[in-house]
Amino acid sequence: MNNEQLTELAQQLRVDSVRAAAAAGSGHPTSSMSAADLMAVLLAHHLRYDFARPQDPANDRFVLSKGHASPLLYAAYKAAGVVDDEELLTFRSQGSRLEGHPTPRQLPWVETATGSLGQGLPVGVGIALAGKRLDHADYRVWVLCGDSELAEGSVWEAAEHAAYENLDNLTAVVDVNRLGQRGATRHGHDLDAYARRFKAFGWHTVEVEGHDVEAVDRAFGEARSTTGQPTVILARTLKGKGVKATEDREGLHGKPVKDADEAIEELGGVRDLRMTVQSPPEARALHSVPTGTLELPRYEKGDEVATRNAFGEALAALGHARGDVVVVDGEVGDSTRAEFFAKEHPERYIECYIAEQQMIAAAVGVATRGWVPYASTFAAFLSRAHDFVRMAAVSGAGICVNGSHAGVSIGQDGPSQMGLEDLAMFRSVYGSTVLYPCDANQTAKLTAAMAGLDGIRYLRTSRGEAPVLYGPEEEFPVGGSKVLRSSEEDRLTLVAAGVTVHEALAAADSLAESGIRVRVVDLYSVKPVDRRTLREAAEQTGCLITVEDHHEEGGLGDAVLDAFGDGRPVPRLVRLAVRNMPGSASPEEQLHAAGIDAESIAAAARLLVEQAVVR
Amino acid sequence: MNNEQLTELAQQLRVDSVRAAAAAGSGHPTSSMSAADLMAVLLAHHLRYDFARPQDPANDRFVLSKGHASPLLYAAYKAAGVVDDEELLTFRSQGSRLEGHPTPRQLPWVETATGSLGQGLPVGVGIALAGKRLDHADYRVWVLCGDSELAEGSVWEAAEHAAYENLDNLTAVVDVNRLGQRGATRHGHDLDAYARRFKAFGWHTVEVEGHDVEAVDRAFGEARSTTGQPTVILARTLKGKGVKATEDREGLHGKPVKDADEAIEELGGVRDLRMTVQSPPEARALHSVPTGTLELPRYEKGDEVATRNAFGEALAALGHARGDVVVVDGEVGDSTRAEFFAKEHPERYIECYIAEQQMIAAAVGVATRGWVPYASTFAAFLSRAHDFVRMAAVSGAGICVNGSHAGVSIGQDGPSQMGLEDLAMFRSVYGSTVLYPCDANQTAKLTAAMAGLDGIRYLRTSRGEAPVLYGPEEEFPVGGSKVLRSSEEDRLTLVAAGVTVHEALAAADSLAESGIRVRVVDLYSVKPVDRRTLREAAEQTGCLITVEDHHEEGGLGDAVLDAFGDGRPVPRLVRLAVRNMPGSASPEEQLHAAGIDAESIAAAARLLVEQAVVR
Repeated sequence: MNNEQLTELAQQLRVDSVRAAAAAGSGHPTSSMSAADLMAVLLAHHLRYDFARPQDPANDRFVLSKGHASPLLYAAYKAAGVVDDEELLTFRSQGSRLEGHPTPRQLPWVETATGSLGQGLPVGVGIALAGKRLDHADYRVWVLCGDSELAEGSVWEAAEHAAYENLDNLTAVVDVNRLGQRGATRHGHDLDAYARRFKAFGWHTVEVEGHDVEAVDRAFGEARSTTGQPTVILARTLKGKGVKATEDREGLHGKPVKDADEAIEELGGVRDLRMTVQSPPEARALHSVPTGTLELPRYEKGDEVATRNAFGEALAALGHARGDVVVVDGEVGDSTRAEFFAKEHPERYIECYIAEQQMIAAAVGVATRGWVPYASTFAAFLSRAHDFVRMAAVSGAGICVNGSHAGVSIGQDGPSQMGLEDLAMFRSVYGSTVLYPCDANQTAKLTAAMAGLDGIRYLRTSRGEAPVLYGPEEEFPVGGSKVLRSSEEDRLTLVAAGVTVHEALAAADSLAESGIRVRVVDLYSVKPVDRRTLREAAEQTGCLITVEDHHEEGGLGDAVLDAFGDGRPVPRLVRLAVRNMPGSASPEEQLHAAGIDAESIAAAARLLVEQAVVR
Repeated sequence: MNNEQLTELAQQLRVDSVRAAAAAGSGHPTSSMSAADLMAVLLAHHLRYDFARPQDPANDRFVLSKGHASPLLYAAYKAAGVVDDEELLTFRSQGSRLEGHPTPRQLPWVETATGSLGQGLPVGVGIALAGKRLDHADYRVWVLCGDSELAEGSVWEAAEHAAYENLDNLTAVVDVNRLGQRGATRHGHDLDAYARRFKAFGWHTVEVEGHDVEAVDRAFGEARSTTGQPTVILARTLKGKGVKATEDREGLHGKPVKDADEAIEELGGVRDLRMTVQSPPEARALHSVPTGTLELPRYEKGDEVATRNAFGEALAALGHARGDVVVVDGEVGDSTRAEFFAKEHPERYIECYIAEQQMIAAAVGVATRGWVPYASTFAAFLSRAHDFVRMAAVSGAGICVNGSHAGVSIGQDGPSQMGLEDLAMFRSVYGSTVLYPCDANQTAKLTAAMAGLDGIRYLRTSRGEAPVLYGPEEEFPVGGSKVLRSSEEDRLTLVAAGVTVHEALAAADSLAESGIRVRVVDLYSVKPVDRRTLREAAEQTGCLITVEDHHEEGGLGDAVLDAFGDGRPVPRLVRLAVRNMPGSASPEEQLHAAGIDAESIAAAARLLVEQAVVR
């Protein structure tokens, strides 16, 4: 396309952005108009993408990090011939594929959901990493960012990661339109300010007038020919470009253009240009995924093994059985035991250093290319990546996450290192699976099972050693539980998971000695929960005591309610959980102080029996 | 102190770090030893701090961002004479003030809890902001960082914020000891790599040999005399410095020194140096806090007002009544309505741009200086700051947080913008208060009440307009609720909050028309919950239907369980919540698709009545 044609195409993208938002009565046309020339040049001359075969492994990948500029994306889809004008005008209406912010749920050309700013570049880094280190393919990753979102720390985690891994297959294009939501950004049109930052982080930088299609074309070319480092194109643009009433004006963020018809006329009217996006070169074979027999580690009953160790050993074994398993970790692999995998499969281990947002984003990125990522760090520090996990669920991304050092039972390190909110966080994520094993064989089985599930899968592991309770042949279906003590005289049921299973067993044994029989359920599958077993326990014993090494909100105690939320009778419930703010102390002291050790559990049970609260 | 004395002091800090960790059997002596010279020089020559009067408003402030180096901090306290040797050796034992990672709970000289890396500098920026913009005081803020933690994006949010606000009262000291937990850091001893990054972000940088006390002394002096920008001192150090067996060695992170006695001998033996930390100049009066009569906005029953608007208007009014209220926002003040406060109190409004971690850190920082911060952004984006909120709770920091645009009821923008996990997140935080008003007068009252509470206080607001239900004189105690429909024939109880209160009322009215009376409870206080009213409703109606614009896990439905977790009889429970992944649609369509609108609620109630599940 010559410059005139490119400019025409850009004007069409603007017009269609204005039209889509006008039809919807909401949306972000002005943020789309600023980036229209960038998008036109990218589509026409640089992106190599077969829209008919979005899964083609040779395709370039495009991520709209500034997800609110979705009208521009959908206008581009129209220009590429994959969305028609009628569909374009369904923007933001119920049932439309063209959502307010793009998601891959119905649109096969969207790599990852965006709309929470500062996430597109981190995920783009993950995709580029897959291309470079895992797929060994030639595709490029293009990420269109806003300038406001560069204030997010996650962008700088991504910048650091990309430069460190020499991702010259990655180009970030920043639409520096000077205006954020509320007003001017910190740096306005000071492109140098951004260039200095990216340069310092090891990127090649190009500054360009973002409405000069020829200059933009050269900038993209420069990005493609730069080797050894990622490139950022910093494009000076005007928000609302092309329409006097909106150009470079404050107060128009996220609003349809007031007089759409007039604006469309000013932009030269409705066009129906179609353009052909260049296809990628002949697809090479996708990464081969060798598979083998899974030989999980086996632990002897009674041995003392930390579940984090079993996780690491199972992960390493899984890596041999499945060539598509990739591990990312936040520089704590010696603690999470992810390093067991690293030692045996260094080519599929990605060190993310202490940058948990980027760690999850890298997992999401490699997952888009068909890999099965396991991300691990301390459970407490996963809270750092909460928004990335949330958005991964919106994307429908399949990622496995491990949080180690859960609960007060870590001991001396104190509350900053204790995961006490992680069950609440992962349970509340859409479509998630939450697993919390108590012994080594159970951990190994669940670690392997996670690879075959959908969506966000969370495994909680513990720091300290615990006796192996189950034999290596035992199966642990997701959604199941294990009844470890049971009799016809059970007066109540202890529901536990992880470290509290061992405490509950000790409590049950001590109660049995005084003639009080109680049932013990190991609820290793926190979400989904085993409703049948819980209902049965409720019907047969009438009272459930939940015991968890987690704050009382959102964890095991609340999970049990899942079995009783349908209007049928509910048993009596008692919840033992961490209600204190722990300090430093030994693991045993911590469990006792929190009232979740065997003694506390037995005392609570005795009280209920003595007060004849339970039958 | 001359150089020899400084070196002696540094050796004592090393020895005491080794001794404390040896006594505890855990801890981080090697990470303490690298920074001992930095700490010695800071204490002896630059920090102005009256240990006897930690609350002195003229005191400098010190933050140990690398919180795992707590042995060094406690050794410094010993050198300053505020902790004796006996107490030093209680390190990490139950009940000791000297926790594994420092918290201000028992130690008045600790400004903020650290131990989750990358948080000390952001909070330090908040304190320095308070000094500069609010207190107008001359104190300096010194933050000792590790090199590993510079991988955290939050550090770069802080770097950006500090430079933008010209915080020349802030000095970051980075202990570049080359080694992280698992091995070498990304940049090892490449001080230039860090200097380039900080320089690009607008900081003055000083590179120094971190074990050369004279050079370190000069570097601190240079930081103090630098104006107009913050300074970072990048100190080249050796982890485990001073002991051959530990110096610059991998694999020794977080472990006591193996042969402690030998190491102590190598370090020159136990010393008992005491030093006097320079006191600050005569304290100026603390920031005056003018107080006035609170004149909250008043809304007429039946008027249509968005709760986010009421929040903004109440906040502006509160700003007039209380001179200590400060507002921070993540560049969405036009949406959260925090801009109403900004317009009337620009001197107490801190724009954090799109950097939610820094926003919460700034709130925590100003709170340490006695201010009452309100932090606001979209509820969904608060998930970005989850770890900062968690650590704020460990600190016991008093901060108010507002999340707007909660739930599917925001409509067309889609799931990336919808807060659907925020109740779970804030409920699970230690000691938190969680409020979710349904009308404008209730919002105004709760907004004001938050200022007087302790710990983390969360207020959830909605985007759309809703009818005012309560008169402006109505009171809404925290921990209370409002029974909006009640009769002796109630067959069940609808428990709602926020937008679902209006849906529940409509459902109740429609059910009443068919002769089915139901109770309606407005559970505006989600944590703590009104146990008495819920129990009464349970006893009188036998069945509770909870209805919430939030995922089913961790929100209102789970909160209700709080009233029934003591072993007494539990009513039948039905939970209506967002179980689908929403797309774009109108607010009404969204509520209907999620099954939480009036029609869905009425249908659920009818089903229960028809099936004779309820009496």
